[in-house]
Amino acid sequence: MDSDTKRLRRVAAELDEPVAANGLLHRRAFLRGGIAFTGFAAAAVTAHDAAAQAAAATGEKLSARTLMTQAVMGGPFTAYGQPARYERDAVREFTVNQLTPGTGSSRTPHHVLEGMITPSGLHFQRNHNGVPDIEPNQHQLLIHGLVKRPLTFTLDSLSRYPMESHIRFVECAGNNGGFNAAEPRQADVQAMHGLLSSSEWTGVRLAVLLDEAGVDPKGKWILAEGGDGASMSRSVPIEKCMDDAVIALYQNGERIRPEQGYPMRLLLPGFEGNMNVKWLHRIQVTPTPTFTKDETSKYTELMPNGKARQFMFQQPVNSFITKPSYQINLQGPGYYEISGLAWSGAGKIAKVEISADEGKSWAQAALVDPVLPMAVTRFRLPWKWSGQPLTLVSRATDEKKNVQPTRSQWLKLYAPNQGYKFNGITAWAADGTGQIRHVYI
Amino acid sequence: MDSDTKRLRRVAAELDEPVAANGLLHRRAFLRGGIAFTGFAAAAVTAHDAAAQAAAATGEKLSARTLMTQAVMGGPFTAYGQPARYERDAVREFTVNQLTPGTGSSRTPHHVLEGMITPSGLHFQRNHNGVPDIEPNQHQLLIHGLVKRPLTFTLDSLSRYPMESHIRFVECAGNNGGFNAAEPRQADVQAMHGLLSSSEWTGVRLAVLLDEAGVDPKGKWILAEGGDGASMSRSVPIEKCMDDAVIALYQNGERIRPEQGYPMRLLLPGFEGNMNVKWLHRIQVTPTPTFTKDETSKYTELMPNGKARQFMFQQPVNSFITKPSYQINLQGPGYYEISGLAWSGAGKIAKVEISADEGKSWAQAALVDPVLPMAVTRFRLPWKWSGQPLTLVSRATDEKKNVQPTRSQWLKLYAPNQGYKFNGITAWAADGTGQIRHVYI
Repeated sequence: MDSDTKRLRRVAAELDEPVAANGLLHRRAFLRGGIAFTGFAAAAVTAHDAAAQAAAATGEKLSARTLMTQAVMGGPFTAYGQPARYERDAVREFTVNQLTPGTGSSRTPHHVLEGMITPSGLHFQRNHNGVPDIEPNQHQLLIHGLVKRPLTFTLDSLSRYPMESHIRFVECAGNNGGFNAAEPRQADVQAMHGLLSSSEWTGVRLAVLLDEAGVDPKGKWILAEGGDGASMSRSVPIEKCMDDAVIALYQNGERIRPEQGYPMRLLLPGFEGNMNVKWLHRIQVTPTPTFTKDETSKYTELMPNGKARQFMFQQPVNSFITKPSYQINLQGPGYYEISGLAWSGAGKIAKVEISADEGKSWAQAALVDPVLPMAVTRFRLPWKWSGQPLTLVSRATDEKKNVQPTRSQWLKLYAPNQGYKFNGITAWAADGTGQIRHVYI
Repeated sequence: MDSDTKRLRRVAAELDEPVAANGLLHRRAFLRGGIAFTGFAAAAVTAHDAAAQAAAATGEKLSARTLMTQAVMGGPFTAYGQPARYERDAVREFTVNQLTPGTGSSRTPHHVLEGMITPSGLHFQRNHNGVPDIEPNQHQLLIHGLVKRPLTFTLDSLSRYPMESHIRFVECAGNNGGFNAAEPRQADVQAMHGLLSSSEWTGVRLAVLLDEAGVDPKGKWILAEGGDGASMSRSVPIEKCMDDAVIALYQNGERIRPEQGYPMRLLLPGFEGNMNVKWLHRIQVTPTPTFTKDETSKYTELMPNGKARQFMFQQPVNSFITKPSYQINLQGPGYYEISGLAWSGAGKIAKVEISADEGKSWAQAALVDPVLPMAVTRFRLPWKWSGQPLTLVSRATDEKKNVQPTRSQWLKLYAPNQGYKFNGITAWAADGTGQIRHVYI
């Protein structure tokens, strides 16, 4: 063993000291060029699979035998690219009622995704009457009601306005609702947390358009109405409209996809998904909330005393682990990266902690830059699994010091079966073979 | 006119004072809640089209007449979404040689895009033998040559390594080459600058894998080879490999698209596109460059003295205006936002300046957060066009103080017809009707 290798092994041994129980390592243990060079490499020879190691032993002779070069001309150029045909798991899952096939939802497959951007084709959907087919040049946005000058806007006229771009999440209020079940559901991250997606949205600040229309001082709310057959409509306080609300025209660089509101949607950063009205065609400034069917029959929160709380707009601080997770099992003892997503409707994520002993000890995960307000933040933590059974949990804290409650703390806040805005800590248990199950702690 | 409107008009009048010739306004003039509330709204009544104003005059009666609500059930849920069928311009353009249909390029339509993310389906392509169809579980990455332990990696083994996510541009060295023509080409932003795209890339730091293999001190370069039929291969200095090089596995959240290197590519932030080898299957550590066909027959720079310069890896600081641009014409006098993209292989964009008088006076554009190194940065500037003919140009400066040269300065650096790495200032001229033409200044 030469001196370089000796040094690497020495540094690696130091960083191999867990910072919390059951093998959780310091968040910089895998980083090269961080505060300390960490020697992950020397320590992590076990991290690539046994077959690769055996093959590697034959050295230079590998090249010709194991590498495949395409022997024929590859595929042609295409005007609009698609995922590889092998990525059959990277699809939205949905269940449809045959009688009302336009009503329902589809979910983002976070268990097979990485990074912070959701591909537009995999953005979750929550539709109440299907996806309308809107000819963009026929579409208008009307702003009326308690304003000095009612105005209509076309895509052409909006194109002259100043634009803003923001990476922001949109999450259905009913996301994570499955954690309310009496027994832990054995289901993947897509099924449990898939009504959450993240995009770069570009559009015109709503305040600019409202200022142009001239809001009457008596106008304290707006009614936002979509052009779908359900006329999905919600009341929004004027303060939010004058703050960071955007008429979004583009999603991840291109025009908004049909199922996300083509040609325009309301973006209310941090507010529950249904308020980000899709296919937006009307904003009426009103003195009070309108109490539409979409905010009385749904999206209210039943309290322990039997009363329903209305207009709880902001999505709470939350997190989940994608790797490992249900059906993303461990492949034997050794080094792993624990990874997942955290987000909050109140602002930036400040901290994500991981526990491998059901909350008795915690290690702080690394947050991936850029950490943005009302955006998903990817977190990562190095881990050395001994092969023993254990339970992994994540706990996020936002910049306003909101912290995820435990599941039992959360359940006490609401009436039984209230399924909106669940943000309790969730847990994945690994058995001795590395198989992952959902458990309640 | 009430006092509120009077105040708005007064503030607007102040911010209406151009900061540079021909109507360029302060970059905060459109921002609400910035240093000063700006009153854009009151000033910009002219910004929405005449038809909308006429319609608005009828006030409340608009709603029923002009808004269309879908009268039938909308479209069904889909497993993987697609753009609206009306977005026929948001496609990659490409020309194909019928004899070698896998050789060529396709271009990103930046003239119809917004924000900083390029949708994966619109990422430019530069292929030398088409798009190989690689079964991901059969694919291996071999690291060999001047290393202690030759290693192979599968997708499964790489999934256990620490991942990194970065929003970075990839740009073909031949992008912007059309500005070398004797006469300005009348072509859109896609044709002139479309070999540039921007994605969030996620993968494993190459240095971690090289450390694990143990690089021999005599190993000063690598050869990176792709698994396409052309075995596209380039030499890369070991310093870059040990710095920020990444084996990228994910693009914008999902597995890399086939035409961007599925299942893995080399990502060398800021380096010319072809070095970011796609369908990567072999890295050989070598004492010297390998002088492959792809770095001797192409991607060299012919100098005025007739000698060719090799291994000029870094893409230079650059910018272009997307709005207005060729075929994105002005629609009459009034307020507009000038918008475009800036980027540099050397780091972050520090500044983008706009001139509306061919470089005699300049206004500083607003840069859209987050401003990231080796990433495209969207810039925006408010503008009030009087209707007079003029020429718009943009000039970017990066954090290393590199500044775009003029076109004539750039031409003096190289032999005639050297088309790689053009980063000269480009210019769009508007005539009195608002039609945009490409001009040389």
